[in-house]
Amino acid sequence: MNTRIEHDSMGKIAVSENVYWGAQTQRSLQNFDIGGETLPPAMIQAMALVKKAAALTNHQLGRISDECASLIVQAAERVLAGELADQFPLVVWQTGSGTQSNMNMNEVLANVANEIAGQPRGSYQPVHPNDHVNHAQSTNDSFPAAIHVATAIQINQHLIPTVQALRDTLAAKAEAFKDIVKIGRTHLQDATPLTLGQEFSGYVSQLDHGLARLQQALHWLYELPLGGTAVGTGLNSHPQYAEKAAAKLAELTGLPFVTAPNKFEALGGRDAVVFASGSLKTLAVSLNKIANDIRWLASGPRCGIGEITIPANEPGSSIMPGKVNPTQCEAMTMVAAQVMGNDTTITVAGASGNFELNVFMPVLVFNVLQSVRLLADACNSFNLRCAVGIEPVREKIDANLHHSLMLVTALNRHIGYEKAAKIAKTAYAQNTSLKQAAIKLGFLTAEEFDKWVIPEDMIAPH
Amino acid sequence: MNTRIEHDSMGKIAVSENVYWGAQTQRSLQNFDIGGETLPPAMIQAMALVKKAAALTNHQLGRISDECASLIVQAAERVLAGELADQFPLVVWQTGSGTQSNMNMNEVLANVANEIAGQPRGSYQPVHPNDHVNHAQSTNDSFPAAIHVATAIQINQHLIPTVQALRDTLAAKAEAFKDIVKIGRTHLQDATPLTLGQEFSGYVSQLDHGLARLQQALHWLYELPLGGTAVGTGLNSHPQYAEKAAAKLAELTGLPFVTAPNKFEALGGRDAVVFASGSLKTLAVSLNKIANDIRWLASGPRCGIGEITIPANEPGSSIMPGKVNPTQCEAMTMVAAQVMGNDTTITVAGASGNFELNVFMPVLVFNVLQSVRLLADACNSFNLRCAVGIEPVREKIDANLHHSLMLVTALNRHIGYEKAAKIAKTAYAQNTSLKQAAIKLGFLTAEEFDKWVIPEDMIAPH
Amino acid sequence: MNTRIEHDSMGKIAVSENVYWGAQTQRSLQNFDIGGETLPPAMIQAMALVKKAAALTNHQLGRISDECASLIVQAAERVLAGELADQFPLVVWQTGSGTQSNMNMNEVLANVANEIAGQPRGSYQPVHPNDHVNHAQSTNDSFPAAIHVATAIQINQHLIPTVQALRDTLAAKAEAFKDIVKIGRTHLQDATPLTLGQEFSGYVSQLDHGLARLQQALHWLYELPLGGTAVGTGLNSHPQYAEKAAAKLAELTGLPFVTAPNKFEALGGRDAVVFASGSLKTLAVSLNKIANDIRWLASGPRCGIGEITIPANEPGSSIMPGKVNPTQCEAMTMVAAQVMGNDTTITVAGASGNFELNVFMPVLVFNVLQSVRLLADACNSFNLRCAVGIEPVREKIDANLHHSLMLVTALNRHIGYEKAAKIAKTAYAQNTSLKQAAIKLGFLTAEEFDKWVIPEDMIAPH
Amino acid sequence: MNTRIEHDSMGKIAVSENVYWGAQTQRSLQNFDIGGETLPPAMIQAMALVKKAAALTNHQLGRISDECASLIVQAAERVLAGELADQFPLVVWQTGSGTQSNMNMNEVLANVANEIAGQPRGSYQPVHPNDHVNHAQSTNDSFPAAIHVATAIQINQHLIPTVQALRDTLAAKAEAFKDIVKIGRTHLQDATPLTLGQEFSGYVSQLDHGLARLQQALHWLYELPLGGTAVGTGLNSHPQYAEKAAAKLAELTGLPFVTAPNKFEALGGRDAVVFASGSLKTLAVSLNKIANDIRWLASGPRCGIGEITIPANEPGSSIMPGKVNPTQCEAMTMVAAQVMGNDTTITVAGASGNFELNVFMPVLVFNVLQSVRLLADACNSFNLRCAVGIEPVREKIDANLHHSLMLVTALNRHIGYEKAAKIAKTAYAQNTSLKQAAIKLGFLTAEEFDKWVIPEDMIAPH
Repeated sequence: MNTRIEHDSMGKIAVSENVYWGAQTQRSLQNFDIGGETLPPAMIQAMALVKKAAALTNHQLGRISDECASLIVQAAERVLAGELADQFPLVVWQTGSGTQSNMNMNEVLANVANEIAGQPRGSYQPVHPNDHVNHAQSTNDSFPAAIHVATAIQINQHLIPTVQALRDTLAAKAEAFKDIVKIGRTHLQDATPLTLGQEFSGYVSQLDHGLARLQQALHWLYELPLGGTAVGTGLNSHPQYAEKAAAKLAELTGLPFVTAPNKFEALGGRDAVVFASGSLKTLAVSLNKIANDIRWLASGPRCGIGEITIPANEPGSSIMPGKVNPTQCEAMTMVAAQVMGNDTTITVAGASGNFELNVFMPVLVFNVLQSVRLLADACNSFNLRCAVGIEPVREKIDANLHHSLMLVTALNRHIGYEKAAKIAKTAYAQNTSLKQAAIKLGFLTAEEFDKWVIPEDMIAPH
Repeated sequence: MNTRIEHDSMGKIAVSENVYWGAQTQRSLQNFDIGGETLPPAMIQAMALVKKAAALTNHQLGRISDECASLIVQAAERVLAGELADQFPLVVWQTGSGTQSNMNMNEVLANVANEIAGQPRGSYQPVHPNDHVNHAQSTNDSFPAAIHVATAIQINQHLIPTVQALRDTLAAKAEAFKDIVKIGRTHLQDATPLTLGQEFSGYVSQLDHGLARLQQALHWLYELPLGGTAVGTGLNSHPQYAEKAAAKLAELTGLPFVTAPNKFEALGGRDAVVFASGSLKTLAVSLNKIANDIRWLASGPRCGIGEITIPANEPGSSIMPGKVNPTQCEAMTMVAAQVMGNDTTITVAGASGNFELNVFMPVLVFNVLQSVRLLADACNSFNLRCAVGIEPVREKIDANLHHSLMLVTALNRHIGYEKAAKIAKTAYAQNTSLKQAAIKLGFLTAEEFDKWVIPEDMIAPH
Repeated sequence: MNTRIEHDSMGKIAVSENVYWGAQTQRSLQNFDIGGETLPPAMIQAMALVKKAAALTNHQLGRISDECASLIVQAAERVLAGELADQFPLVVWQTGSGTQSNMNMNEVLANVANEIAGQPRGSYQPVHPNDHVNHAQSTNDSFPAAIHVATAIQINQHLIPTVQALRDTLAAKAEAFKDIVKIGRTHLQDATPLTLGQEFSGYVSQLDHGLARLQQALHWLYELPLGGTAVGTGLNSHPQYAEKAAAKLAELTGLPFVTAPNKFEALGGRDAVVFASGSLKTLAVSLNKIANDIRWLASGPRCGIGEITIPANEPGSSIMPGKVNPTQCEAMTMVAAQVMGNDTTITVAGASGNFELNVFMPVLVFNVLQSVRLLADACNSFNLRCAVGIEPVREKIDANLHHSLMLVTALNRHIGYEKAAKIAKTAYAQNTSLKQAAIKLGFLTAEEFDKWVIPEDMIAPH
Repeated sequence: MNTRIEHDSMGKIAVSENVYWGAQTQRSLQNFDIGGETLPPAMIQAMALVKKAAALTNHQLGRISDECASLIVQAAERVLAGELADQFPLVVWQTGSGTQSNMNMNEVLANVANEIAGQPRGSYQPVHPNDHVNHAQSTNDSFPAAIHVATAIQINQHLIPTVQALRDTLAAKAEAFKDIVKIGRTHLQDATPLTLGQEFSGYVSQLDHGLARLQQALHWLYELPLGGTAVGTGLNSHPQYAEKAAAKLAELTGLPFVTAPNKFEALGGRDAVVFASGSLKTLAVSLNKIANDIRWLASGPRCGIGEITIPANEPGSSIMPGKVNPTQCEAMTMVAAQVMGNDTTITVAGASGNFELNVFMPVLVFNVLQSVRLLADACNSFNLRCAVGIEPVREKIDANLHHSLMLVTALNRHIGYEKAAKIAKTAYAQNTSLKQAAIKLGFLTAEEFDKWVIPEDMIAPH
């Protein structure tokens, strides 16, 4: 491997000629041989966006030259185009401020910029990683700004659309199933009837609420720490930098980013991420309920509930022929479990800031972006390969409905709770129908039974 | 113990003559001898409120008589006045729908109502627990409605005011300390300066955000499941009941309760509680950070940071004379740990609904109300017995500030990052002041140093 | 209220004449008006045991007089007899070391001891709370010692016996059900058969493992911090105190307590509690699975799985007559959710020690003892009111078994996986029996089917 | 891309000619486009080990031919040599049983085996993925067996050695620092003295305990589900298969694997993993405490505690010259936060089994192996780049020690707690030394002070 010698304030260090990164990235690679989890691509993109916005803002405020700004922007756009994905090799388990990843971005952008300007890697002329790319920034404000940008973008671009799509599929099912009366279940026990459409409408409502809660969480992610620099005071930045840089990011992304009202909080706390994780976790809880209901409703095919079928996407067993399993539901509930655990990590990390900085930022962004991606992908997969193919099994639904003892509830207002209970218990004990038990007990006639016990009349208030 | 014989659909059971509860409460007492945690008083109050609202609404809709409504309302008002606190003995660890606690309330209100009407306990005349007190309700909609009512009231009446009061105290401190320049700290290491007021302003901002997030969470708690009855269909309720009952609760509480847009979700999921816990947990994270900062800033008195003092409320050690500990901070961080754990419980419980009902409701309300109460009480205690008495230790603050090597950052733009770094390292290695090192290295004169290194100029952008 | 004036190193304070506690307890009451959760009785008892052991050890080592030791022991025995339960009013949310609760115990024991000696409360003659009751101790070693003692006792006396009893009931069921062949279920889908006894034997094995893991956790709880005093050095204690005090506690409790090998860890960390919570959480996970299986197996009665019945202990619904719910299962799974959340609290608290002390001790002991008690009580309740009454529903079991398509697995070795799969799919699509489909497809004869597909032959290796 | 057509029980599917996997892997790739997290390499290796052991055992029991066994073993050994890492592309978020990953292994081994035998990919002659590679197995027993094998190997080979190495470094420091007397700190407040060596001995003891607890957890991981096949009954396996296959794995790995005593538990629960995670989490808690202590002790350099120095591995700030941060401590505490969150995921997943199978296995193994790896790597990194370079700052240690007011504790037995407290408070209020205050108050002479207050005498019992 051919190397060049770079140096930083710690001294010299050899870096491969093939890479755009510099001394500080190289040191981090050597110092943090932990796990293999690198910062997610969405975070790398967001960091490049922040650098681009910073360069444009610094230029606008007269702090960096036309040439310098132009070169940084060009370099950043190459990252944004996904060209340099292999130039960001650092793991999550580094310094808790993300300084090394910030310097990785600064170094790569500087070397790419200088290359565009015809200068060799390592020259840091005309663009310097600290003086220009990082101008008016500290890791301490630009890294958390990138966390907010990355998370807000991913929620907007990936999560909301897939949740919406799944919601729409379930809404179509709710409409399609609106006349299918079926037995309800509470405590896993048979209860009074509802329609299959009503059951699915509950899932739709959960997702509608989930989407609205994501918007609430986004509100705080739109507040950017940029302009706080090292400790929140904005030392070394232009007085208008904070506001203008946030506006620039809003312009570049189409999202309503603003400058955080208080930069000391914006560096010392990561509460917006903690709260966002709370909304993601709530969504996971909803999806977990939906996926569980669907796999139970589809359980069987012969010895379960079996009131719906779901698509059979793959052989279910390496030993049992013909077995089909609710695998999309399983993927979804595993994702839900992961998001719940990520929320614990995020909570612990978010609670652990000291004084002017929270130094659990890489683990925070790693977890929150994983939660967003997994939920988005799982909703998409669940929608396309399970939800769209859900079909009712009308025969089973009807048999269950008419078999159920809880239709007796319809008799409450005619013969009272206690007699109704007696009918249900008698039918259960003697394994007969409600009607048979009712007549045998002499509480009502067959005609009365048929007139009063109509499941279709039990699915709404009167 | 004198007893009366009551009966329910399971048969007869002896109940003490001294109590207002009936058969189903008595069975639960005997069947669930688990732990000792009863439903919190705030939940009992909320259940009584729900019953009162239901009675008034049923009366308005012509479903129960004037006398019956009046008696139920009178009975409910006795519970609301706190008179019957010992009549609700059931533990959290009962049926997951809270049916037994709902019946406990129905039975107590019926017996109290009938007593007002001159009838003996157990007569259930003229007011019957199921037919009248529980009219147009199921546990499945009235219990979760009470969860929302209880949580919303507690957040509004207890948590928001105490957080606000603490926030105001910290804001007053931020104002009082606004000219005290001190050393910043990131990574626990000395950093560039800020004012003590700026540091405290970050705490104020965290709490301002926390208050706004509580409002976001309340939005969903205001949606009430009432009117869903057993499975969400509203069977046995009047078509206008759901909306009117919610309006009645809004009127009784002064809070903007509305009927939940979808009753199948409102029974099957408890997502609003999960999300509320997410906002409580985020607040806990903020308070944890604040309490940690304050105890570290007050650490010492001789061998710690010692930049502030906090009130000495009690002797700190049974063995070390004169020791004073940051006990209010400790209570606060223990509360934060509890709220984080409660959030896990709530998440697991919220994720575990099946079909038409979530049957983890007692544990959900137990945990969410504990989180609210502990946060409220801890904010109040921390405010009154710690925050109001925080005072700066100016001598220590000044000594630290002028001792610090990070003031060297001010030289970046005069002599560049690398020479500045060399000065800092030299001063550190030789244990001298920055000024001495700077002059010795020949990078600048004493006059230049004094002109350029002014901490007061380092606390804002230029 | 008549009061007496007590004083401590902070000055004077009025204390009710009716109480045995003194100045420091009184201050804590006033300073920590947070929540209402007091230290659990099991912790109060353990603290009294520690004081008794300390007094006996100090006496043995010649550090306190015969009279003094005798009086302290007598006073401690009154607490151990449960006589003074109302004398320990302090909440969990106090100083994180438990100093105030330790002083509460010291003050109560001193006042009781002196009363026995004929001296008035507040005289602290001849027994002084610090000099004698707390002799050779600091809160920092005696409070965590009491945590270990309390938790070890509760696990031994309450949890292990109830888990064992539930295990024995389930083992008896496994034996009773050993010949009942039923359909298996994986992924909630029908699978190959097993016996109901085999299914229950899995639960027995989970509990057997859980019991063994509790023993592993106890091993570390038996290590006592006593003798570390304030910071682990043992300052102010006799060189033989640590070992002898642990031996005394072993003697008093019959449990194998030993002195912790390193007192700096024993004060700075609470890892033994964190690990114990891990074992409790694992037990909760097992119980959650068992309770879930049982409620699903008992689901129905008509529209669920319905292969077993469980006792009907109470009416299940305030609106649906005749409904019986798996309430003991619900209590158990709510307990499991609580234990999981408590584990999060304990983890956060256990991770948060600094230097010579962990100051999250009251919240640690509150949570771990709650987990122990809830698990113990829930096992007992579940055992007595659910498990013992579980009965198979043979008709349903048989119908499911013979209805199932997964019996086709038995044909694999006769006709191969692919033909077997085709039979299963055909039977499913055409809603016929396996046998009909097999014959129709011409893969085998009726005789061959009957010879090869015998569920009873599918429940063990060959 | 050239493809070949494969088929399974769902029909035909095109697979790239370049890959060794077959139809079922291909389907999973298309059906589960979720996240990017694949099964960890350690799990792939363990699955190959299980297949090798199964083939050898089946051969030994006469169930597969010499040729077949030999070919499977050769293929498995290529995977074990790491040659085929790119042939296992499936993500974690698939079916919860891991069936698709099990089939991926079966297909790859079959195709590699047949290639060795001179047959084309897709021929499945002479080695068939189901009939031979998967012989006597179901995913349901072989996948969880591989989870146990993978976790046990990783704990033994990677985690235990790195924890041990860190422990040894810290033990060497404890020895080296054994005579350095320093101030203790409890509640972050100055306390009585101890030696720096004693402080570090606490860390050593935490790790010693952690190592012992890992052994306790391993005990249960050594129990293997192999032989349970589809539902625990062992259908389709030889009666001696379970025991012999476990023995074979013990032989191949050198670890004491045995067959699980109950296969119904072994498939339905994953409690051994939950408990193992509890031990990993406890270790994380210990490491969190150690890393926190070290970064606080190293805080400063001028305005913190500054009693030790740690190696400066990289520049600490992109804006503050000369700043050095405790980055290895930060990586460690971020890892600890991750492990705590993983524990929540594992708990939720472990609690969610139903009937004969837990279908959260991929997420379980993903999290537990991540926890093991991160802890191992972080211990290694922390050891090499931080712990080994820890040095005391004797000047600061001495200044703190002699400055402290808590040395007054030594006077307790000479002048009593109350006078001692008065001295400490006077010295604090008047900002003088203890000695000055003591003399001024007239409680003792200078000579007495010097004779009685000797920190070196305060670090052990007398």
